[in-house]
Amino acid sequence: MIDFNTKSNEFLELIENKLLETINQTKPISLKDPFEYLIRNGGKRIRPLLTMITCGLVGGKPINAMQYGVAIEILHNFTLVHDDIMDSSPIRRGKPTVHKKWDIPTGILVGDVMIGYACRLMPKGNDLKNVEKMQSLFMNSLVIVCEGQAFDMEYNFRKDITVDNYLDMIGAKTANLIRTSVLMGAYTGNANDNMIEILDDLAYSMGIAFQIQDDYLDLQGEQDFGKVKGQDIVEGKKTYMIIRTNQVADKNRELIDRFYDENGLPQELVKEMVDTIDSLGILKEAKEMYEKYYERAYDALDALPQNEYTDMMRWLLDKMKNRNS
Amino acid sequence: MIDFNTKSNEFLELIENKLLETINQTKPISLKDPFEYLIRNGGKRIRPLLTMITCGLVGGKPINAMQYGVAIEILHNFTLVHDDIMDSSPIRRGKPTVHKKWDIPTGILVGDVMIGYACRLMPKGNDLKNVEKMQSLFMNSLVIVCEGQAFDMEYNFRKDITVDNYLDMIGAKTANLIRTSVLMGAYTGNANDNMIEILDDLAYSMGIAFQIQDDYLDLQGEQDFGKVKGQDIVEGKKTYMIIRTNQVADKNRELIDRFYDENGLPQELVKEMVDTIDSLGILKEAKEMYEKYYERAYDALDALPQNEYTDMMRWLLDKMKNRNS
Repeated sequence: MIDFNTKSNEFLELIENKLLETINQTKPISLKDPFEYLIRNGGKRIRPLLTMITCGLVGGKPINAMQYGVAIEILHNFTLVHDDIMDSSPIRRGKPTVHKKWDIPTGILVGDVMIGYACRLMPKGNDLKNVEKMQSLFMNSLVIVCEGQAFDMEYNFRKDITVDNYLDMIGAKTANLIRTSVLMGAYTGNANDNMIEILDDLAYSMGIAFQIQDDYLDLQGEQDFGKVKGQDIVEGKKTYMIIRTNQVADKNRELIDRFYDENGLPQELVKEMVDTIDSLGILKEAKEMYEKYYERAYDALDALPQNEYTDMMRWLLDKMKNRNS
Repeated sequence: MIDFNTKSNEFLELIENKLLETINQTKPISLKDPFEYLIRNGGKRIRPLLTMITCGLVGGKPINAMQYGVAIEILHNFTLVHDDIMDSSPIRRGKPTVHKKWDIPTGILVGDVMIGYACRLMPKGNDLKNVEKMQSLFMNSLVIVCEGQAFDMEYNFRKDITVDNYLDMIGAKTANLIRTSVLMGAYTGNANDNMIEILDDLAYSMGIAFQIQDDYLDLQGEQDFGKVKGQDIVEGKKTYMIIRTNQVADKNRELIDRFYDENGLPQELVKEMVDTIDSLGILKEAKEMYEKYYERAYDALDALPQNEYTDMMRWLLDKMKNRNS
């Protein structure tokens, strides 16, 4: 039986080295420094891990898919730096965001060049049997992630957002890149159509679960150093819990109405808002919701031919599901 | 003998239709509107024209390269919308820039999604013999154009910029995409290595000529509706003429020193600055400089096997060289 921690650390070392290789190619220094700062400021590298594990799971060598996972990790970080500008977020993972530490032009430009680096890591020419599918998947996921962000911004000004709207938006912003990570690995390992279909379902469910849980942990989790509890409420994000509270609140409408009217609430009202959400049973409901999506992901995993990498994927799903922040 | 105006209009109609097709795929409306506004706000479509003409010139069918030229046109427009934010430019081609008409987040996001659209127009899988070279060329040119913009921004804060620094910067920002346009057409038409080398030289010279001329026309040309004369001087751009004036000015240093100290001059001092540049012979020098680069482009063209498309390229070079704005 493999020790999945050891295996995961082996994968992570390869991933970090490839990221470092890309950082070291970056010029001029005015782009290299913020790029390095962003990448070194952490992140769990879940996306490239998913790519490598999936490649193994379908019978390929995980190392062969590593570079494509790194491409998605860079693309993911591009979305973070640009989203932070668009959302005027001053802090990311406990440190000043790139546009705060440098300036907005630097944040824009480093994001732009990162798209270029990510694209350069894609398979080219006749590198792989599924090269065309992989290229289309990657380019489409760049377009979709932007569409998702456009919907996210549009929702800031709309009061009629439904749970379905929310699921579409996080499907495009979060599940999309999780799905691309998994399918990149599957295509590299030449998965058959049936496997692709199951993995697609697995990845989408995992992505949706991951994001609803993320929103839930913003209110209920242990907060990382420097992260303020209820940041989403302050920023006026229409999460599952906010949308549901707006739907079911009857007498206790004062705070939720103010949230909708003012696109968020001041920090000092966050605790009271969370209490309202809790009293309506919606924290519990959100937890059940993301657990349901995780279950779907586990079910998909069970439907695949079992091997050490299905076990490793289960191990990663457990880690994601049981996280506290 | 072909009527090049008619031929060019035929090409332009195909180009506009393809651009429109991409616009019509764009969602949500909050991205489609600014994308459409940007693309419809004009531009001479020189890049896709170059791609199509070059494809014909090397023996291919121009229509086969059209889509790749459109990809570069979209990439070029992405650089405009992001550069306008970084440079805080309120006006482009006589109309409010995207981030002024909408807002900065919209400007960032529409630029991002345009990179995705451009990439999706690239050849994939086994579309073409030279698919791998074309993909690398395109992705590299995305990285290089960002590097060029990084140098451009860095130069704003540096007083020691030389003509060589300037040529490197415009090589990356302007000549790079002109070169990519030409080589995309050459690869689509399966040009041989010798032709590629000559066309590379032609495109680089054309790109450098085009940019120095652009800077020259900012001071000396007829200004488009809504464009202010000497905008580069107001914005503190270190053009060839500014760098040379800084090098040769002896007594008359007051304005150029103030330009360097304050990163530009107020609008009311533009005329006096232009007079100083002129009195030092540097307007004439700049004109000779870009004419020299155009000559190199014509010479490269003469070295190619002659056909109707070398004639059409000569016609386009003439049009570029003789433009007044």
